Amino acid sequence: GQSPRHHPEISNTNIKWSLPAVCFVWQLSMIILFGVFVRYNEESDTHWVDYRKENNITSDIENDYYFRYPSFQDVHVMIFVGFGFLMTFLKRYSFGAVGFNFLVAAFGIQWALLMQGWFHSLDYTDGKIKIGIENLINADFCVAGCLIAYGAVLGKVSPVQLLVMTLFGVTLFAVEEYIILNVLHAKDAGGSMVIHTFGAYYGLSISWVLYRPNLDKSKHLNGSVYHSDVFAMIGTLFLWMFWPSFNSAIADHGDGQHRAAINTYLALASTVLTTVAMSSLFEKTGKLDMVHIQNSTLAGGVAVGTAAEFMLSPYGSLIVGFFCGIISTLGYIYFSPFLEEKLKIQDTCGIHNLHAMPGVIGGIVGAISAAAATNTVYGDLGLENTFDFTGPFAKRVPTIQGGYQAAGLCVALCFGIGGGLVLKLPIWGDPADENCFDDEIYWEVPEDEESVPPILAYNNHMIPNKHADM
Amino acid sequence: GQSPRHHPEISNTNIKWSLPAVCFVWQLSMIILFGVFVRYNEESDTHWVDYRKENNITSDIENDYYFRYPSFQDVHVMIFVGFGFLMTFLKRYSFGAVGFNFLVAAFGIQWALLMQGWFHSLDYTDGKIKIGIENLINADFCVAGCLIAYGAVLGKVSPVQLLVMTLFGVTLFAVEEYIILNVLHAKDAGGSMVIHTFGAYYGLSISWVLYRPNLDKSKHLNGSVYHSDVFAMIGTLFLWMFWPSFNSAIADHGDGQHRAAINTYLALASTVLTTVAMSSLFEKTGKLDMVHIQNSTLAGGVAVGTAAEFMLSPYGSLIVGFFCGIISTLGYIYFSPFLEEKLKIQDTCGIHNLHAMPGVIGGIVGAISAAAATNTVYGDLGLENTFDFTGPFAKRVPTIQGGYQAAGLCVALCFGIGGGLVLKLPIWGDPADENCFDDEIYWEVPEDEESVPPILAYNNHMIPNKHADM
Amino acid sequence: GQSPRHHPEISNTNIKWSLPAVCFVWQLSMIILFGVFVRYNEESDTHWVDYRKENNITSDIENDYYFRYPSFQDVHVMIFVGFGFLMTFLKRYSFGAVGFNFLVAAFGIQWALLMQGWFHSLDYTDGKIKIGIENLINADFCVAGCLIAYGAVLGKVSPVQLLVMTLFGVTLFAVEEYIILNVLHAKDAGGSMVIHTFGAYYGLSISWVLYRPNLDKSKHLNGSVYHSDVFAMIGTLFLWMFWPSFNSAIADHGDGQHRAAINTYLALASTVLTTVAMSSLFEKTGKLDMVHIQNSTLAGGVAVGTAAEFMLSPYGSLIVGFFCGIISTLGYIYFSPFLEEKLKIQDTCGIHNLHAMPGVIGGIVGAISAAAATNTVYGDLGLENTFDFTGPFAKRVPTIQGGYQAAGLCVALCFGIGGGLVLKLPIWGDPADENCFDDEIYWEVPEDEESVPPILAYNNHMIPNKHADM
Repeated sequence: GQSPRHHPEISNTNIKWSLPAVCFVWQLSMIILFGVFVRYNEESDTHWVDYRKENNITSDIENDYYFRYPSFQDVHVMIFVGFGFLMTFLKRYSFGAVGFNFLVAAFGIQWALLMQGWFHSLDYTDGKIKIGIENLINADFCVAGCLIAYGAVLGKVSPVQLLVMTLFGVTLFAVEEYIILNVLHAKDAGGSMVIHTFGAYYGLSISWVLYRPNLDKSKHLNGSVYHSDVFAMIGTLFLWMFWPSFNSAIADHGDGQHRAAINTYLALASTVLTTVAMSSLFEKTGKLDMVHIQNSTLAGGVAVGTAAEFMLSPYGSLIVGFFCGIISTLGYIYFSPFLEEKLKIQDTCGIHNLHAMPGVIGGIVGAISAAAATNTVYGDLGLENTFDFTGPFAKRVPTIQGGYQAAGLCVALCFGIGGGLVLKLPIWGDPADENCFDDEIYWEVPEDEESVPPILAYNNHMIPNKHADM
Repeated sequence: GQSPRHHPEISNTNIKWSLPAVCFVWQLSMIILFGVFVRYNEESDTHWVDYRKENNITSDIENDYYFRYPSFQDVHVMIFVGFGFLMTFLKRYSFGAVGFNFLVAAFGIQWALLMQGWFHSLDYTDGKIKIGIENLINADFCVAGCLIAYGAVLGKVSPVQLLVMTLFGVTLFAVEEYIILNVLHAKDAGGSMVIHTFGAYYGLSISWVLYRPNLDKSKHLNGSVYHSDVFAMIGTLFLWMFWPSFNSAIADHGDGQHRAAINTYLALASTVLTTVAMSSLFEKTGKLDMVHIQNSTLAGGVAVGTAAEFMLSPYGSLIVGFFCGIISTLGYIYFSPFLEEKLKIQDTCGIHNLHAMPGVIGGIVGAISAAAATNTVYGDLGLENTFDFTGPFAKRVPTIQGGYQAAGLCVALCFGIGGGLVLKLPIWGDPADENCFDDEIYWEVPEDEESVPPILAYNNHMIPNKHADM
Repeated sequence: GQSPRHHPEISNTNIKWSLPAVCFVWQLSMIILFGVFVRYNEESDTHWVDYRKENNITSDIENDYYFRYPSFQDVHVMIFVGFGFLMTFLKRYSFGAVGFNFLVAAFGIQWALLMQGWFHSLDYTDGKIKIGIENLINADFCVAGCLIAYGAVLGKVSPVQLLVMTLFGVTLFAVEEYIILNVLHAKDAGGSMVIHTFGAYYGLSISWVLYRPNLDKSKHLNGSVYHSDVFAMIGTLFLWMFWPSFNSAIADHGDGQHRAAINTYLALASTVLTTVAMSSLFEKTGKLDMVHIQNSTLAGGVAVGTAAEFMLSPYGSLIVGFFCGIISTLGYIYFSPFLEEKLKIQDTCGIHNLHAMPGVIGGIVGAISAAAATNTVYGDLGLENTFDFTGPFAKRVPTIQGGYQAAGLCVALCFGIGGGLVLKLPIWGDPADENCFDDEIYWEVPEDEESVPPILAYNNHMIPNKHADM
């Protein structure tokens, strides 16, 4: 018989034509645009051997691939396993969490390579985008912004809507990134502003637009079960462990990458302790809440993103992590209910607490630490290198840089909030209120006959009509 | 009481003597053979410090370890977690999937080091195999072929049979690899031919030999449950994420590794979109099928293996991925049932769709792109480097190379099919038809008392005779 | 209604004040101490650019970051996912396993950076600890010792007790490490002595002190369920795969790291085969036991730790792995029950079999292989490099070194056993005997309504009073 979990299909959730159409059209467009625009750069082209000779590069190990590939793979794991599994905490939305995350990321990285390529890697001699390992990392970063936004609307939108969100989000990302990094010449190695602030506010404003007053119809599915919480910890831990790679992946060769990894390692360690402390302190009986452990422990990584490459100093990193663990956990306890009840923002994964607030803090920390940079601490060459005070920016000084950093944060906020408000997602297969957070709508879900315990299965098989008659 | 899931033991599945015997004899043989034959190579020996001086190597960072170790570890994860967890999708064969995968791989890599060592790393001055990091990667690759084959017979063979399959498979692999890479001088960085085509057809022909007409007796276990599908996604994602490392791990230093990673990254992204599109398009109500998402999303990585190191160009990689997602998903929908009903090939994991077809496509793509290589695109030195047109092969040109690539594909096919047909596995503890796909046969499986829900446990404990009397 | 699994709260398990207090006080102390003592070293400071010039370092790639970062990240995964998930095998202690492991590690690495820093990285010119990537690896290593100890008391102590264990354990570790590595000048790249022997005996002696004669009151929870065993395999495999990185992470640049990785790879492969053999041989019907597969397969990595960097030779590594698989599995079958019944040591995870015995074996193997080192095998420079026979130790010869290695093992044993006996943990929120191994005590655990099978849920919902009346 039909179990109570099998809801009747609502016709508008049928994505049989819209989803394949979007995927095929999109992928064919990508092939054409890549054919026209994208080529290997000098380090990934077979002409590298000539390039080496011309530039007196003594060894293949100087290829940027060897500086960045390990970090790239760690970032890749964060995007696909980290974000994907972090969202599997819902009892019946694990397929959607990990599967749509997979789809969105694979979809977005291609568009990101083009959009970011036009802004950053265009070779004006032949009009081609020249890509190498750094472009792959940046494409992953760009998609991270959209996956953060997905966290706010998890379980409430269709995959078609997600793809539209991603298409629009990647485009906005590339523009705000260009303004922040190139026009304002702000630094943001770990993307506190460019990735987290933008992505979180983009998601939150979309969630505000899509507000569902009757979402409590599916509240029985808006929670975890024991094993789904363990699955989510896979996501948490891979994000936590590889965050030093995230913040150092595109930092300067040498001390830049080295320092970014150390700062992030320390900030995250500190965050774990204050998250645990707050979680225990604010639960009735001092018990820990998995929601906090899964999410708030990561806030320090977000908040140290902008300043990771700076001389934040080890204790500075610990301080940033200290406060973010507290603020993020308080966010889950007090701010998320407030957001939902008063501001009509339903934030499934609590991205406001994990990405938005820590991202803004990260931008502010970055601005302050840039403004406070001195030649004594950095060294003359070190200061120039760290902030790229070269070319048109050769005359810039730390205090001015601090101002531009702050301006960068504002740009990220405006693009995030504005972008989400402008994007009004039409009804493209989204689930009814009573079907939110349910994989049944978009996935073939296996019958869990295994979970019938022996004694029941026995009764049920032997005397099949007994229970049915009752 | 005995639950219905506990099948009576069939005597011939008792592997108490055969499995330990094989393991001990094998491991002792390995120790002896390694003692006679295997030594460190010049980069892993303490004489490296002398070697550096003699060869004017300026830095320890020039040791091949630093070029390949990150990729090696990624490949290692693919072999043990990737393949292992991908096969955990069956509701009651997760122990066998991940556990026997572990056993087979640990068993096979040792034999692979010897077999491949004799062919590729034998130092003729002292008759010793000299190993370094590249040998470890190649051993992992070799075992990958056998693990692919395991996918076809998952749940239907005993661990003893698996070990015999692996012993024979690794031996065949080393021979076909030598013929393809050394004799024919074909290139196959990511192993579309050497690993995937060979491994898949080896497994499929073994499965044909072991055809079970009454396999539907255990069809209630030949499927997934909700959480087993999530576990399988761990395998899928680690394979997907680290495939760029797989295809670039033994590519040329510098641009070779760099380009192979980019091409694989792109092909895989493209495959995800067409897989999702096809899965939705061919299901009745447009829902996605986890089988496709778990498997077909990987086909692009297989198919771009041979040509990953070539100047396939970014859009070329996208095209390869595009078609493989379509073909692989169609394979699951139409071809797998056909294989089983008409050709009597029972392919548990659908390796025909994930490895065989994409592997053959990869061989063809490699042949075509090699034949089409030009000095204009590659540069003179680049062409020579990429195809190793040196020494006895100094006179070879791209069009001829294309022919040898095609010949290599044929060799892989012949060894795969032929090897599987020749290997007639005797009855070494394989399960009866009704016990296939069941961990109970080879594993101590815990009673899942926890899964008894509270209300039932309550009834059951309080009024123990109530149900029993019924 | 209240399910039988919900035990009444025992008042003394309330950690609402003690846990937050410890976390906050600790973290604030860390911030102050880091502020006073910890700075970036010359490779992670912005002055690196000046340092490079002064020292004629030709490239940023010579920064130690590029030699060690990939290994560091692998070690990081072992600490947080490896140890964490390995302990999730208990049916209802997965939150505690992975969550408290997370807390303990994040807590311990900060204290380790300070303690190890004072001993090893203190810059006497300014009294500051200068940290770089190697310090992060060593901090992870140090914490590994405490996480091993956690394995012995898993499910039986409160998080507050764990933090005290860690604080004390890290302190002891830093001292014994200094004595073994600096005073005795023993080598221990993979920490068989320093990490595994110390950590395991520290945990075992704590477990002896905390002996619970009535622990069988919670024996229904001291076991696995099907999916918890699969989760534990995630831990096993990440430990197994990344162990070559663990043993090579702080080995010498060049051949040292290269050789350590090869030796570990081989030892671990060998261990898998003998573990499987013994597991099958000693179970009644030849079935495999997940406990052995999850744990004993790792023993070879422990035992090859000290000698990993030495010219152990490939077959030597296989031999070490061979015996450790046997001994460790026998330990689980015969020795663990003996320890519990006769010696009153309750060892939840069997760390005696996975870390203590293999650790001691590793120390012995190290001493023997050091004593047997010759100039012929190592080369003159190689011998000096491998054993650091420089400075005050310039006159030391291999046989003497062997003696000091053995002395190092004794130091590790004494510190481990002595430290655990001295540390008498007061009653800081530990669970009652009947509440051991139960996440309910320290965690908000979700109701698993999902696991109610359809037929039951139906009955229950439709006729809610039916069962309640019975």
